[in-house]
This record gives sequence, structure tokens and C-alpha cells, in this order.
Amino acid sequence: MPQPLRIAIAGALGRMGGQMAETIAADSRLELVARFHRPGSAGEGLVERDEALALTDVVVDFTTPAASAELATACAERDGPALVIGSTGFDVAELEAIAQAAKKIAIVRSGSYSLGLNLLTGLVEQAARALGPDDCDIEIFEAHHRFKVDAPSGTALMLGEAAARGRGVRLDDVVKRARDGLVGSRPMDEIGFAVLRGGSIVGEHAVSFLSDGETLTLSHAASDRSMFARGAIAAALWVAGRPPGEYDMNDVLGLTAS
Amino acid sequence: MPQPLRIAIAGALGRMGGQMAETIAADSRLELVARFHRPGSAGEGLVERDEALALTDVVVDFTTPAASAELATACAERDGPALVIGSTGFDVAELEAIAQAAKKIAIVRSGSYSLGLNLLTGLVEQAARALGPDDCDIEIFEAHHRFKVDAPSGTALMLGEAAARGRGVRLDDVVKRARDGLVGSRPMDEIGFAVLRGGSIVGEHAVSFLSDGETLTLSHAASDRSMFARGAIAAALWVAGRPPGEYDMNDVLGLTAS
Amino acid sequence: MPQPLRIAIAGALGRMGGQMAETIAADSRLELVARFHRPGSAGEGLVERDEALALTDVVVDFTTPAASAELATACAERDGPALVIGSTGFDVAELEAIAQAAKKIAIVRSGSYSLGLNLLTGLVEQAARALGPDDCDIEIFEAHHRFKVDAPSGTALMLGEAAARGRGVRLDDVVKRARDGLVGSRPMDEIGFAVLRGGSIVGEHAVSFLSDGETLTLSHAASDRSMFARGAIAAALWVAGRPPGEYDMNDVLGLTAS
Amino acid sequence: MPQPLRIAIAGALGRMGGQMAETIAADSRLELVARFHRPGSAGEGLVERDEALALTDVVVDFTTPAASAELATACAERDGPALVIGSTGFDVAELEAIAQAAKKIAIVRSGSYSLGLNLLTGLVEQAARALGPDDCDIEIFEAHHRFKVDAPSGTALMLGEAAARGRGVRLDDVVKRARDGLVGSRPMDEIGFAVLRGGSIVGEHAVSFLSDGETLTLSHAASDRSMFARGAIAAALWVAGRPPGEYDMNDVLGLTAS
Repeated sequence: MPQPLRIAIAGALGRMGGQMAETIAADSRLELVARFHRPGSAGEGLVERDEALALTDVVVDFTTPAASAELATACAERDGPALVIGSTGFDVAELEAIAQAAKKIAIVRSGSYSLGLNLLTGLVEQAARALGPDDCDIEIFEAHHRFKVDAPSGTALMLGEAAARGRGVRLDDVVKRARDGLVGSRPMDEIGFAVLRGGSIVGEHAVSFLSDGETLTLSHAASDRSMFARGAIAAALWVAGRPPGEYDMNDVLGLTAS
Repeated sequence: MPQPLRIAIAGALGRMGGQMAETIAADSRLELVARFHRPGSAGEGLVERDEALALTDVVVDFTTPAASAELATACAERDGPALVIGSTGFDVAELEAIAQAAKKIAIVRSGSYSLGLNLLTGLVEQAARALGPDDCDIEIFEAHHRFKVDAPSGTALMLGEAAARGRGVRLDDVVKRARDGLVGSRPMDEIGFAVLRGGSIVGEHAVSFLSDGETLTLSHAASDRSMFARGAIAAALWVAGRPPGEYDMNDVLGLTAS
Repeated sequence: MPQPLRIAIAGALGRMGGQMAETIAADSRLELVARFHRPGSAGEGLVERDEALALTDVVVDFTTPAASAELATACAERDGPALVIGSTGFDVAELEAIAQAAKKIAIVRSGSYSLGLNLLTGLVEQAARALGPDDCDIEIFEAHHRFKVDAPSGTALMLGEAAARGRGVRLDDVVKRARDGLVGSRPMDEIGFAVLRGGSIVGEHAVSFLSDGETLTLSHAASDRSMFARGAIAAALWVAGRPPGEYDMNDVLGLTAS
Repeated sequence: MPQPLRIAIAGALGRMGGQMAETIAADSRLELVARFHRPGSAGEGLVERDEALALTDVVVDFTTPAASAELATACAERDGPALVIGSTGFDVAELEAIAQAAKKIAIVRSGSYSLGLNLLTGLVEQAARALGPDDCDIEIFEAHHRFKVDAPSGTALMLGEAAARGRGVRLDDVVKRARDGLVGSRPMDEIGFAVLRGGSIVGEHAVSFLSDGETLTLSHAASDRSMFARGAIAAALWVAGRPPGEYDMNDVLGLTAS
């Protein structure tokens, strides 16, 4: 049995911070050595940031863009620990600070840590590249709970972008967001969407490649939000001991860049 | 082994007539005793209508409304055979002629002979009645080949009518035919549709009843059009020897009337 | 807005009792007027049983067979309230006590309060009756989390019993619990099972009726265990004010008895 | 509009030869310039092999191992045309003859020309590599018509091999071909199979990667056997004008070798 990976949580008082703590506690490959929130925050069981950085191999950080950029700089100045960043909405200066830090330490940064959705996106792009528009029609189905206000979901549109990229076209040029009435025969290169809303569905996505006589479908179903914490842990286990650099989930999953 | 049921085909030169002949030939419970088309039609292996009626227990008829009404009258005048009518688009006078004939002979008449779709429609109505709008959301998904020009499909709308009937509302008052953009939270009593088009899909329909924590889905997939011939044969086997009357596929399937 | 239904919980300290309290609190059609556990139990917010019975329209009871039988007798002696019983494993004497009580009060009793699974069971039996073994093959698929130790699931076998009942045969005579190796062509009247195990799936069941050219599938997916509490509430709302008698979930769902 | 690709069919009197002729006739990118069967065969519309080779850019060949090896040698001696070989069951000498021919001409050889199944196999291997056994359980479901005599299907086992290869294990060491009875909790690295038989299903396969809280499923459904002809055409369009060499469907689909 190897030594468990020492891990610290930044943003420990947030929802993802709480979820991370639970998921780490249940995983024998990991030891949770410190929890902190943001500079100046205090709370039961929290330590100071610099104290945490001295104890750990990897920090998992779901905070704010500003706090993440500052944390990256602090980690780089100490030549470690490695960093897994889940904050989103960075401005140019913050991204530049992270890029600078990545010259000294290994950083994984992603807008979504679901292993399944990241993998699905990569596979959809490959399938769309392999099966040209002469060979098949692409359709994307998604289902969410009754409280979701927008359609199609952001993830469905992201999958549509991946499919369009695989085909070498722009999604905007080929998208069919909904069908109602006398829509006529389906154009050959269209990428269509179908949306279901109801119940308490956390999120389902399916991308189908439909040819004469055969259909390939790549799909994902989420049943709770723990998948994001589990993906961040996979990233932490992957990034520990890596050379400096900025990585994303394609690297963690070993997918070929497109 | 009982005697096979003697069966005759009206409209033998039509597409359904040809399909019926093939399907009957493959079924040991049946003996194809005569084929005719419409009065005045001649062709290889065809007999005159009156000759056919004298030979058979049941006539399966996919012709025209006028021809079907006339055939029903002719069968009634002879006190048999029984009749399975698949023609559609009857006017009032033709329906009245059939109703008169049904005082003397047993007649099954349906706009669609798919056992599966007729059964699905009956089950959807029951489920919608059992699970009120407080308990669940109803959504209907359908998928068809790339050449289908309208959306949602007529069958999907028919399933929506069955669901609305089960809830005691009108589909028009609660229908959501497509979702695109900022649609907001789902209203409680909405019946929503989602449409997929692509490849060579013959026809798929799924009606979902979605609650907090559980989803019931009733679905049907067609892979070829032989199902209509098979349903007509099930109707023929059912109607042989029944008392006079006009029946539909709910009777054949033993479903409770709504 | 009508008066909310007054409801009391027996077995308030059990897992289902806790779940019931949460679910009732979130439902504006209901008012939780009392919680008690079993005779002699004390706890924060609990009242004595007889006090509870005086306050309420319906008692929802997930306790033990003995406690449920005694509770039924106590309710009957007072000519109310009505009772929803979720305990299982009754002996003959306990069932007899409940039957006696049901001469004075309305009682719903079921081994499982999932609306969806009860409805699915009823629909499967109907479909199996409508579509004979000449018309279609019946197959049952189920999927559960990696910790489930038995296969097929008890619910899958219950669905198989319903399908067999619909066909007028015994499941034991036609069951095919698994297929591996050179199994040969499928016998016409077989009812087959397929089992998947993995991840954290709460429970999925699908019963398919497969014919040449068409497939009807009736399926259910559970995503959390709140569905049992919701079904018990549906039973409570249904049973309030009913004439004395012993009812089950088929009555609550308005399904025709088989 | 570019010139259509000139294509010839070897094995024109076989089932696949007939299917190829139909599919080519319906595709405006192709011109069917010659049909031949095997040396010595004569038939309506057939030409001699050497005449055919002089006319065409690519030969599509579904014959016998011996005939395919001989054809490859003949094409190589003329420095063309390119070759798409669908025969199976080659012995060592035949494979060597094809390898020699591939030094002079481009040859695609595959045991199955379904684009979808080849792509699925490649994606399954990648997904299994990306998601280790700590992260997820792998399960394979397949469904076929009632006449299929073996279980699981050869294609399902091939998908299981791909999943095992992605994980760096041998399928035989981790396979669970069926589950029945008290099977206990699922071992972490197991690859399980579930089998459904019924109706006229041409072939359905689904590989699921199940984690706590999320499931990724990669699936394929065939609705008729034209997919093999369509895949062979995709191979013909891809191979025309390629440098000499022996290729397979991974090359045609642009998948990274494993």
C-alpha cells in the first residue's frame, strides 16, 4: 500500500469544498491534511493558507478567479504544491498569473471536473471526425429536472460544438435547436437538438450518429453532483509529481488533443 | 391442431394486400383461401369477390372507404364472413353503412393495426389517469428517419391526446411542442414533446412520467412495416366467430374502454 | 384551497418515519399533526399514540407487523382514523386482526409504496395478457449498484410473475434466469432475465415485449428512496374518507384487478 | 462535382456482392464499372476478372480467402487497382500473399465493415483506458433476435476484449458472463455481460462505464445488414489513391492505434 496522497482544500466553506471533504474522507488513496477558505476566513477546523501549503502535495481549489490566481502565485513561489483549479470566469490578468505559475508548478484547470462528460466530449469529437456528414446525421438529446430554465443545456451545446469541431464546421452554421411543424426533410449536415424537462433528473445527454441501417449513441447520465468532486480527485492523483505546466481534463484522461 | 382460420384478402393488389399475403403464408394458424382486389379488378390468382366471400371465415380489407363500405354491406347480406377493415378517411354515409352491416356481422375497424402502438396508447392513458399532475410530469419523445417532414409525428400527438385524456384535460391547453431558449421552469401540467430526426429510423416513441425520484417510461420501436399486417391478423383471429358488432383494437387487445 | 389533510406518523423514529416527516413537511396538501413511535417509546416531539389518533385523519405506519396489527385494532375501536400500512412480514393472526379492523375503517396495505413500480406491475400484466406468446417474446432487464448481492432483483422477479400471470402461466415453468454459451434458439413462451451491476444505480427495470418488427418496452428508473414516502402520501390522500375496507396500491392507482 | 470513383465487385454472385451492387447504385460518388465472381464463374452482366481490373480504381472483394489472396496478387502485378477485402478465415500463406501484394498496392482488410461497430470498439478501448477500475465498473449489454443460438454475441465479447485491452488486463481474467442467484457484491475489476433475446432485433450492443454518481454508455444499434456494404464503400473511397500498404478500419476511421 503506497503512502496516501496528501491533499488540502481551498474554499473549504463553499459547497464544493464541503463535497470535496466528504469524498476525500471516503477514499483510502488520499489523506486530507488541511482545509482553508480564502485569506482572512476563519472557521472550525480551518488553518491558515501558508500553513496548509507547507503540509500538502496537492491543493484542490474551488473559490473565485481572483483567489485562485493568487493561490497559484503563492504555490509557485514555494515551488509547490501542485494545484487543481475548479474556479471559472477568469479575466485575462488572472489567466496570465496562472500561466506564469505553471512555469514552476503543475496545474490542472477545468470548467467541469466530471470525468464522464469530459470523456464524452472527446469521444464525440472523434466520432464526428470519423463519420462524415455523408455517412451520418448527428442529433443531441438532453433531459433535465423541471426547474431548469434554459434549453438546450449548456452541456448539450458544448457537445454540439465538439461534434461541429470534429466535422470542421461551426455549430452556428448547422444547428437546429428545435423542430416544430412542417420542417421538411433533414438537411445532410444539420446538428439537431431535442430537449426533455421533468421530474428530478440531474442531467442526461446523448449524442447519436445515425446512418442508414445503424446508429451509434454516446451518452452520459449524472445521478448526483459528487461526480465533480470525484473528477477533481482523479485530477489531483494525476497531477501529483508531474512536471510544471498547465493541464486540462483531456490530459488527465489521456485523450489525444484535437 | 385446430383447423386453420380461412382468410381472404380484399385490396390484394395494394401494398398492404401484398404484405398481408406474405404474412398469412408464414402463419400456420391461417389459410389464405382467396384474394380479390376491388370490383372489376383482374389479376393473376385473383377471384371474384362473391366467390371469395363464400369460401372464407374472415376478410381483411385495406382498400378505399367506398370499397370497404360496399364490402361490409355485401358481407352482411350473406350473414358473413367477419370483416377486418384497415381503410381510413370514411365519410358519414360510409360509416353509417358499416354500422348497419355490424348489426349482422362482426367487424373490426382501426386506423392503425400495430398491436404495440394501440397497446401503448391504452397504457399511456391509464398511467396518466393513475399519476396526476401533482405526482408527475409527462414528456413524449419521438425519433424518425431523415425524410420525415413534420414534427412532432402524428403518432406522438396521438399519444399526447391519450395522456391528456387520462388527465381529463385538452392537449391543446397543456401542449409544449418544442423548447428553445429561456423557457423558464416547467409548468406542472405541461405535456412536452422532443423530436429527433436522422438515419433510417422507422419510428420510435417514448412517453415518460417523471416524478421526484422516479421515472416511468412506456416506449415503442418499430423496425419494419410488417407489424401492421401482423396486427390485422391478430384482429382476424380475434373477430372470427364473435357476435355481430363494430369493434376496435382496444377490444382485440382486451383493454378497458376509457 | 381545501383544508390540508391531517396526518400522523407511526414509527416516527425509523428511517421511513423520518423520510415521511420530511416529505409531508414539503407538501401543502398535508398537515403533520402528530408523530409517535411504538407504545412506550419516547423522544423529542413525540406524543402518545392515543393522543395522536384523536387528532388525525390518517395514520401512516411503517413499524413492525405486531405494532401495525395492534394499531389497526386501536383505530378500528375508535372508528378512525384511516390507516396506511407499510410494514411487511405479517403472520396469519396479524393479517386477521387487520382484516377485522378493515370492517370498521379504511386501510391501505402494500409491500411497496412506489407509485411507479406498482403501476409498472399492473401495466406489465395487462400487456402480457393482450400480447400472447404467439405474438411476442417477454424479456426483463434490471440494473442495480455494485453492492447488490442477488440476481435477478426481487422486483424483477415480481415483474416476471406479473407477466406470467398475464399469460396464464407459472413463472417457474417459463423462466430463463440467465443465458451463457450455446443456449439455442429462444423458446416461444420463455420469460428471460438480463442483469447489470455497477456504479451507484438505485434501481432500473425494463420489461420488453418483442415481436417481429416492433418492440414495446415498459420501464422504471428510481433515483432515490423518497419515492416510497411519496407513494405512501398518495395512498393517504386517496384513503381519507373512503368506506371501510382493505385496499392496496392497485386501488389507489385505479388499476383494474387482475 | 468530382469524377465518381470507379469501382468493381468481386464475388458478385454472393449475398454481399448483391448488396454492394445495390448500395453502389444508390451512391452518386461511385460508378460501378464491372462485376465478376470468381475465376471461371459466368453470369448475366459478369465480365472476366482481368477485364474488370483494367477498368477500375478499387475492387471490393467478398469472396473466399483463397480467391482474395489470388486477387490481391493479380492487382499487385498490375500495380493497381486498390483493394477492399471482406473475406475472413485466411491461413498463413494467404495472409503472406496479401502482405506481399500490399507492397505494391493499397489494401484495406477487415473482418467487419460496420463503421459504427469499428468506431465503437475503438472508443470503448479509449474510455476503458481513461477510466481506471478505481473509477468505474464496465458492463456490456447485448440484444439479438430469438434465433441467435449463442450468448454473449461474438461482437459483445469483442467489445469486452477492447475494454480489457484498455485496462491492460485479459478479458478471461475479469469476465462475468452471466449473473444468477447469490452472486455477492461486484468485484472492482469485473467486466460483466447481460444478454437479451427476442423478436427480430438485428443487433444492439451497449458498453457502460458506471461510477458513483455518473454513467457513460457507448452503444450501437443495427437495423439492417446494409451497414456492411456502406462501410466497405467508405473504405473504397478512403483507399483510392493511398500509398501501398495494408490498412484496417481504424485507419479508415482515423482512430489512433492502440
